[in-house]
This record gives sequence, C-alpha cells and structure tokens, in this order.
Amino acid sequence: MAELPVLDDEVIDRALRALAWSHTADHLERTYEGKGFVAAMAFVNLVAWLAERANHHPDIDIRWNRVTLRLSTHSAGGITQADLDLARQIDEVTASN
Amino acid sequence: MAELPVLDDEVIDRALRALAWSHTADHLERTYEGKGFVAAMAFVNLVAWLAERANHHPDIDIRWNRVTLRLSTHSAGGITQADLDLARQIDEVTASN
Repeated sequence: MAELPVLDDEVIDRALRALAWSHTADHLERTYEGKGFVAAMAFVNLVAWLAERANHHPDIDIRWNRVTLRLSTHSAGGITQADLDLARQIDEVTASN
Repeated sequence: MAELPVLDDEVIDRALRALAWSHTADHLERTYEGKGFVAAMAFVNLVAWLAERANHHPDIDIRWNRVTLRLSTHSAGGITQADLDLARQIDEVTASN
C-alpha cells in the first residue's frame, strides 16, 4: 500500500456520499449494530474475510452487538484509495445495515 | 449476572496468579498476539464462542495480530466471579499463549 497517495478531503467526501462511513482527520469510520452478539460476530468475520483478501485490515472494536471499524493506510499516513475500496466492499456485502 | 457481588482486590489478585490476565480498577484485561491477522481472528472466534456460551461478553479490540480483551460485570459495577470464570476458560483453550 505504500505507493498509494493520501487523498484530498474533497475526494474522500465525494466518495463517502454513497457509503455508510464517516471521515475524521486520518481515518474512515463505520459503526455496525447487529441484533445481538452473534450477528455482530458474523459481521466481523465477513469484514475479516474481505480485509484479508485485500491485505488491508481495519481496526475492529466489538462491544456486544456494536462493531466499530476504523480504516486508514498507516504506511501512507492517511486515507488512500485502498481504504475507500475496502469500505465500499464492506458496504456492498452488508447493504441492509 | 446482577446477583453476583463485586470481588475484593485480594481475591482477584489471588485468582490471577494462575491466569494470563491483568487487573485494573474495574476490569480484567488480556492482550493476545497471534502470528498474523488470521490467527488473531481464530482466537477472537474462540473467545466469542466461550462468551456466548457463558452469556458474558468481553470488549474485544482487534489490531491486526493483536487482540485486547476487557472483562467486567457492568450490572454489578466491577469484577465478579463471572469475569474470573470466563478469563480462566479463555486461558484454558489458549494455553500456549
């Protein structure tokens, strides 16, 4: 991922219009609420599979039924296309939430 | 879990001598390092299975190969026997770490 450039805020904001993620200074963030812990874990495992496939791994915090994901490209020091791509893939497979 | 009493520090410290967990003011904490993300996720899923069986769910933070667990009994406002029991179960199935 090191060769990817950090994206401008404007580019990020435009991409996020179609996504369930918010944008802070240095990462994309999304919180998912499942119907309970087991549903939350199913979501986590789906995210894990997509992350491993992309070789790009979000921080994942699990609080019973609530899962918070944070995505950034540490090697680039900010948000890159790799983050937007994985965010979109995660949204595509969890569209109903 | 509401009926379980919060344990004295002395009781907790004695129990922790045999466990891989540390003890802060209001929770038990353990960090696990896997050989990579996939190993970390296997650990998370094992913890999730034990947690659901016990109906007692730790906070779980995943940072690539590093998983931090925090256990407390929110309804009791501190650490109870339910926390020590789940900590011991988690250690029993992940003894090599």
